[in-house]
Amino acid sequence: MQLKLYHYWRSSSSWRVRWAFAIKKMPCAFVAVDLLKGEQKGDAHLKRNPSGHVPVLEVEDGGKTFFLTESLAIIEWMEEIQKEPSLLPGNSFQRARIRALSEIVNSGTQPVQNLKVQKFHSSDPEKQKEWTRHWIREGLSAYENLVKETAGKFSVGDTVTMADLFLIPQCYNAKRFDVPLSEFSTIARIDAAAFQTSECQASAPDKFQP
Amino acid sequence: MQLKLYHYWRSSSSWRVRWAFAIKKMPCAFVAVDLLKGEQKGDAHLKRNPSGHVPVLEVEDGGKTFFLTESLAIIEWMEEIQKEPSLLPGNSFQRARIRALSEIVNSGTQPVQNLKVQKFHSSDPEKQKEWTRHWIREGLSAYENLVKETAGKFSVGDTVTMADLFLIPQCYNAKRFDVPLSEFSTIARIDAAAFQTSECQASAPDKFQP
Repeated sequence: MQLKLYHYWRSSSSWRVRWAFAIKKMPCAFVAVDLLKGEQKGDAHLKRNPSGHVPVLEVEDGGKTFFLTESLAIIEWMEEIQKEPSLLPGNSFQRARIRALSEIVNSGTQPVQNLKVQKFHSSDPEKQKEWTRHWIREGLSAYENLVKETAGKFSVGDTVTMADLFLIPQCYNAKRFDVPLSEFSTIARIDAAAFQTSECQASAPDKFQP
Repeated sequence: MQLKLYHYWRSSSSWRVRWAFAIKKMPCAFVAVDLLKGEQKGDAHLKRNPSGHVPVLEVEDGGKTFFLTESLAIIEWMEEIQKEPSLLPGNSFQRARIRALSEIVNSGTQPVQNLKVQKFHSSDPEKQKEWTRHWIREGLSAYENLVKETAGKFSVGDTVTMADLFLIPQCYNAKRFDVPLSEFSTIARIDAAAFQTSECQASAPDKFQP
């Protein structure tokens, strides 16, 4: 099986998947899709994903090629084909909680604060920033409230789970838009702990900046 | 194990989970949370889910109570504890595609078009409608482009999968906001086929309208 991840260095959804690859130590080639140059709208990329989004995982298996899209679906696929180290550890209730936390970022925060939504809301850069900060604050507040119940060193216990793979790239966006993580004490602590791990560092945006 | 679903009749995320219960024939009590009366912001509901969202699944198991939140996480939990009938059938690639389609609605469409985002965008009802229609169109277009590759009678083959549980409630929102499904020929066909099934009918909003 040959794996190739089409990604963009600064896309938070791309980072989630790069981080999953680092933890599972699955060999994968990384191919940059330059969103600033509009490569995501080119024919080559639209054949991989008609939505034009990154990340896309290309899988060559038994002479066939599969394109997997949507970061959460890609990570669930990785978890199915290689269980260890698990990103969804524990019993069914703990797994449900990891998925719920992931969704607070995946569906509740990132989609509303992203660039195309900002731009459709207003062409005024100040209003765009205000919009983005509002939704990042709302999302991280919801995460903070729920994560308090399960947090150890990381979001659920003392090992990195899928929830952290969604949280930390969202924290990176918060910092970019001047939302201080100090407003969310548990999240700030998890963010600091995550950056102590080699897999988080190895998958972070600055390592892939052109 | 005792199950209780806190839901709202018109919430598309609630419908997804009601439909999953209908398909899996798992016994579950339904408890309405009246969003119009603001019950989701009351102490009783915030104890179930600090985000105040519906649906929430309350599970009594072995003397303990668990609250499961986020529709996708709830459905994945149901799939784990009762495999059949499966909402994620097929091999790992097909399951990844079902999850990717679900995500186009779950993270790519519904969160941006929902009421609180509409209202934060503008207080003008006409601008709210324009906003909502724009994002529903964008989301359903992305779904249409991807679903063409796998659609049989339903989104992936000829049985209802998790993807349909996300699509059809989104189609219901499209109709509410006068986005004609005829713009998306495959989706329109799947929508009609879904309403021929007893589980879709039994879980639909009108069956739970107060």
